[in-house]
Amino acid sequence: MARNYTIGVDLGGTNLRVAAYLEGAEFLEVLNLPTRLAEGRDSVIADMREAIEALVARGFGRLTGIGVGTPGPLQLPEGILRNPPNLLGWDGFELRRSIESALGRRIELENDANLAALAECTLGAGKTYGCDSLCMLTLGTGVGSGLVLNGDIWSGFSGMGGEAGHVIVAPHKGVPCGCGGSGCLEQYASATAIVRMMRERSGGFESTTAHDVYMLAQGGNVHARSVFSDVGEALGITFTSLVNTLNLPLYLLGGGVCEALDLFAPNMYRVLHERSYIYRLTEPANPATSQRCTRIQQAELGPRAGLLGACLLPLRMQKSAVEAELSVR
Amino acid sequence: MARNYTIGVDLGGTNLRVAAYLEGAEFLEVLNLPTRLAEGRDSVIADMREAIEALVARGFGRLTGIGVGTPGPLQLPEGILRNPPNLLGWDGFELRRSIESALGRRIELENDANLAALAECTLGAGKTYGCDSLCMLTLGTGVGSGLVLNGDIWSGFSGMGGEAGHVIVAPHKGVPCGCGGSGCLEQYASATAIVRMMRERSGGFESTTAHDVYMLAQGGNVHARSVFSDVGEALGITFTSLVNTLNLPLYLLGGGVCEALDLFAPNMYRVLHERSYIYRLTEPANPATSQRCTRIQQAELGPRAGLLGACLLPLRMQKSAVEAELSVR
Repeated sequence: MARNYTIGVDLGGTNLRVAAYLEGAEFLEVLNLPTRLAEGRDSVIADMREAIEALVARGFGRLTGIGVGTPGPLQLPEGILRNPPNLLGWDGFELRRSIESALGRRIELENDANLAALAECTLGAGKTYGCDSLCMLTLGTGVGSGLVLNGDIWSGFSGMGGEAGHVIVAPHKGVPCGCGGSGCLEQYASATAIVRMMRERSGGFESTTAHDVYMLAQGGNVHARSVFSDVGEALGITFTSLVNTLNLPLYLLGGGVCEALDLFAPNMYRVLHERSYIYRLTEPANPATSQRCTRIQQAELGPRAGLLGACLLPLRMQKSAVEAELSVR
Repeated sequence: MARNYTIGVDLGGTNLRVAAYLEGAEFLEVLNLPTRLAEGRDSVIADMREAIEALVARGFGRLTGIGVGTPGPLQLPEGILRNPPNLLGWDGFELRRSIESALGRRIELENDANLAALAECTLGAGKTYGCDSLCMLTLGTGVGSGLVLNGDIWSGFSGMGGEAGHVIVAPHKGVPCGCGGSGCLEQYASATAIVRMMRERSGGFESTTAHDVYMLAQGGNVHARSVFSDVGEALGITFTSLVNTLNLPLYLLGGGVCEALDLFAPNMYRVLHERSYIYRLTEPANPATSQRCTRIQQAELGPRAGLLGACLLPLRMQKSAVEAELSVR
């Protein structure tokens, strides 16, 4: 019997990754290409098509669907990019139409951060802790975020849901954010923010990596330690608003900044405990609810989460179709 | 043929309202009683039982379920109250067990603010605007809030979801909140907060009602006007975080403070436009998305929304049971 497989595409600002995925198992093959933004949109779409066709030609079995993840903002269901900061010049690009017309078949399309959250929920931390709802924050160059509710991505009504990296943590005189707003979490908890905060506090700091700030903090540098204390506070404020609004069982932290978890976690938990009554009622230390508590954990799948989520997306759509059919009866 | 009806109970700190509701139509009868908190929990439950039995004795038709709304925090599915500020002394009370044992039958139980949101979604503003997902903020003595996603209440994993009145809008030196935290929306947008802010700004203000602050603002009082400007800012900050995280099509404002909508709305929309890129991409004024936009509207059902939601709750549970049965096939 032919095996069922899907193909997933992770379209990033730097890398274009395309994988074949055996349903319920693992990657069959992963192709890594550069995203040739300088060559124009058509070249990128052509590269994507060629990689997909190369995988199809392997004869892995029966291809049941193609999922594509892209940086947002992405307007769904139309599949139109809206001024995406990581795909400069692609504003208004009809990504779905372009890919579907190149391939001659339908695809499933989603924001890449939502796909990473879906993969974590299905195959990562969600599986580990038995939770089918979670919010994932990826602390990298920016702060990506995705939301999964009852096992399915919460895309929002127009595809733009799950952007918790832009919860406001500094209402007044907030640092301007790449999103056009100010005072967003991203400006206080991303690797970029960590470097900026360190420079503001310590005149001599000339490195450009958050890892160097981490090493200084590990060595006892007071400024570096205060930076991570503030990262913890910003995350504590954000989680307070998320926990009180959503009462999810699981919140995940991913991305490179997590190497400093031991430095920012104490302040994060302190703020959350002090300010969120829902957290106090459900925290692991509360004996009344320790069996069923609010957890904050590290993501488990690492950088491949987005690509895995793209591979899972067609399976999710098939499930929805079955449910929709049943509910019509 | 016997008509199907449900019974709904709205257990408040002051009033106990019990209604019979004809499915898909209107209230058949509403009983209004005082909530005799001073007499103890058993008296309140006994009053509830008597009112329900009186309605059943009317012979309206076939009773298909009983829904009960209560102030939170409410731990679900157990139905245990957790230190509810509006039912002092009821901490740890097993509300579900107590009511079910008094009635000798199962009930459906929910947080009252979530029920008001369910009613608005099903019969109020959600119906008007064709939206099956919304977040509702009720600006009264406190700020109540409920969340409905895809037509169903989002209770959270332990029943405590939807508390957007406790999104943090003042991270630093925030006003202490009744929830035990500080800087929550409730301290900047409730009727209580409006009176407090007016007193802080104007030594001579001795009234205890937000309506009086509103009348002063209407008359041009600078302090009163600045209070409502700050209410708008706090709502704008909150909506920014909600819109960016959830990308819902509809946000509702209810409660007495809405009489001042014309005073606080301009600042609310200004902040939201400036700080939420998701809002800018989906606001009604954006021609690209005006057909399918993010709306902020007034709630339509008024104070009866909570009682209506309690009447609708058993119908929602029946629907879920049918779906669960189908998904097992």
